[in-house]
Amino acid sequence: MYGLHQGVHHFQSFDQIQSLPKILSKRKIATGIIGKKHVGPADVYPFDFAHTEENNSIMQVGRNITKIKILVREFLAKSKKDPFFLYVAFHDPHRCGHTNPEYGQFCEKFGNGEPGMGLIKDWSPIYYQPDEITPPDLPYFIPFTRAAQEDVAAQFTTMSRLDQGVGLIMKELQSAGVDGSTLVIYTSDNGIPFPSGRTNLYDPGLSEPMLIHSPLHRKRQGKVTYSMTSLLDVTPTILDWFGIEKPSQLTGRSLLPLLTDEPEEDRPIFASHTNHEVTMYYPMRAVRTKRYKLIHNLNYKMPFPIDQDFFISQTFQDMLNRTRNKEPLNWYKTLQNYYYRPEWELFDLRLDPEEYYNVANKKSYKKIFDDLKTQLWQWQNATNDPWLCAPGAVLENTGEFKLHPACLSAGYFNDDLY
Amino acid sequence: MYGLHQGVHHFQSFDQIQSLPKILSKRKIATGIIGKKHVGPADVYPFDFAHTEENNSIMQVGRNITKIKILVREFLAKSKKDPFFLYVAFHDPHRCGHTNPEYGQFCEKFGNGEPGMGLIKDWSPIYYQPDEITPPDLPYFIPFTRAAQEDVAAQFTTMSRLDQGVGLIMKELQSAGVDGSTLVIYTSDNGIPFPSGRTNLYDPGLSEPMLIHSPLHRKRQGKVTYSMTSLLDVTPTILDWFGIEKPSQLTGRSLLPLLTDEPEEDRPIFASHTNHEVTMYYPMRAVRTKRYKLIHNLNYKMPFPIDQDFFISQTFQDMLNRTRNKEPLNWYKTLQNYYYRPEWELFDLRLDPEEYYNVANKKSYKKIFDDLKTQLWQWQNATNDPWLCAPGAVLENTGEFKLHPACLSAGYFNDDLY
Repeated sequence: MYGLHQGVHHFQSFDQIQSLPKILSKRKIATGIIGKKHVGPADVYPFDFAHTEENNSIMQVGRNITKIKILVREFLAKSKKDPFFLYVAFHDPHRCGHTNPEYGQFCEKFGNGEPGMGLIKDWSPIYYQPDEITPPDLPYFIPFTRAAQEDVAAQFTTMSRLDQGVGLIMKELQSAGVDGSTLVIYTSDNGIPFPSGRTNLYDPGLSEPMLIHSPLHRKRQGKVTYSMTSLLDVTPTILDWFGIEKPSQLTGRSLLPLLTDEPEEDRPIFASHTNHEVTMYYPMRAVRTKRYKLIHNLNYKMPFPIDQDFFISQTFQDMLNRTRNKEPLNWYKTLQNYYYRPEWELFDLRLDPEEYYNVANKKSYKKIFDDLKTQLWQWQNATNDPWLCAPGAVLENTGEFKLHPACLSAGYFNDDLY
Repeated sequence: MYGLHQGVHHFQSFDQIQSLPKILSKRKIATGIIGKKHVGPADVYPFDFAHTEENNSIMQVGRNITKIKILVREFLAKSKKDPFFLYVAFHDPHRCGHTNPEYGQFCEKFGNGEPGMGLIKDWSPIYYQPDEITPPDLPYFIPFTRAAQEDVAAQFTTMSRLDQGVGLIMKELQSAGVDGSTLVIYTSDNGIPFPSGRTNLYDPGLSEPMLIHSPLHRKRQGKVTYSMTSLLDVTPTILDWFGIEKPSQLTGRSLLPLLTDEPEEDRPIFASHTNHEVTMYYPMRAVRTKRYKLIHNLNYKMPFPIDQDFFISQTFQDMLNRTRNKEPLNWYKTLQNYYYRPEWELFDLRLDPEEYYNVANKKSYKKIFDDLKTQLWQWQNATNDPWLCAPGAVLENTGEFKLHPACLSAGYFNDDLY
């Protein structure tokens, strides 16, 4: 998907994609989805059991943990003890101030028992004092302002709903008697919705929880891995669990070996972002090793676009107002340098985990830069990235170039061309 | 469609779109398509009779005029004398050097009887001497170079195939006895594939033939109208012909009244272009009156992207080489000013039909500029354009903004913000 599926954005996966539910269905593995779907077309993502925004209120199937618990129970009862794949996509802790401000910025009031908010029986909301959310609990990429503290406090309350929801699901696995044979993966599909987070390829945008629980791998239970993982690894991991061969075009790898041993060497991970909203064209490609991160901003002469969701948040509105009023933002960047980014950003994360100092043009980093650039290009090539030659050249891959695709320079940025 | 449907571009119309074949099918009008389709998804464009790139070689159904003639005959025989709508989408005179260079830049050799080219029985190719194609036959926006002359000569030969193909279809209407009751519209879906043409909103990109033949409107037969028309008028015109009410959201108008009288006043026409290839993000919106044209370039800080098709053409390759070698382009622009365009371009077409002098910032044109800007914004608003607020602001239209959508400035270009 180049961007969002819903509404006017209308991005669609290719029809020939062999999605996880498609591959698993062919093997007679029961598939289920509860909560946020956000992908299409429907034919490409066929689930036997589906309760999503397509046939339900996303609030109910994505945030009402009692409803989610009952749906999980229903699915497990149907699949009996046969092999199954269940994808529970909590909508929490997604913002909702943009679509449903009546429930609060993060829907943190939804189901808390207050008048008009309904009651989610299984949820005991945990409340946080905005004042108490200070650095380092308030991370470096969020302005240290009252507006942001309140915003984060609201999100934390929402997270209490998510956390308790996960607990309920774990209990359902036990009650159904499948906890001893079920692999559980807990992760997220995007980074935290604060500046430098979601829709960015800076670390706050890429960092996501990755917890794996396997009753069949006891050696490292409760242990932490320092190996880097990626969402591209989820499908290979699940296929590995079911003993299904991984389609050769997938560049991710199974994470199951991590449950036994910490690898001696690590590989780079790759990240890609193109559109989000259809109007938010800001393609970026990135490679990250344990020490370095290289980001290629393809539409870099234009400002980095702010999504409708985050734009309307009190955190961002406050940043905008402070900038307009020349007041301190209490933030590690200015809006201007957040909006305008160079084509290449290279960070030495060991010395600069906040990704503040771009060393792309430093002579001493030239070899690192070139190596990472080559690795990124190879990955784009391996994944048939249409932006392989962007922004400076045109990809020709048909006709006389069919067997030997080429990036031909258009001289867009070649100052000596003119 | 925001851009191309095929391949990696994969743009799709919205599922709820009431397309022309959909509306007509409901009224039991037989629908047919022969040739280039290039839209999707299939459900939105249901034709009873379809011979397109989806089930045929585009070369055969789009350029082999003998094949096209026979398909037209077949369709007319099936529909008998019942009401029908037939869309014959010649692929000619589209370039093909990009995909099928073996047939020449414009497939001008395809079916000419030479070895390996096959033979289209009904086509008598007309050949042109490149030397003889000089200004004013070679228009101002095409470089006066040998490379371009050869390219244009090849396209002219292709046009001889298209022209003769249209003649064949007209004869089929006669043979089927429906010529006395059939409205014929001849137009094109894009401007000429030369610089400032196709994928541009300059006049060479917008200018298309528009010939209408109606056996029921004899008053102005053979006459020329000076009224401006748009492809947005095609659906309203056909619905009018069949006596079907126009859906209120369509902003075009029926052209049938033009067949009777020249209107005293004219309206502005509007144009929109967003993507073409998925990597070619360069949204533009334009309004044109008889005298003025205003173009809004939304991604204006980035270079105007050249499509794969035109990039590889000998005309463009020659322009690129000449620029590299500091040789004269014999052209009205430089590549640099072709690539880099201001956000707003305003042309006074009466004084400057070549759209060379941008008067957007001239004080004496301020009122014109403001008026056109307002008209363009109103049209974008009426058509629910997601880019309504781009590039400077964020459109908020859900939650508390649901009833009153608003453009909220992000301060992207607001120099005094920083």
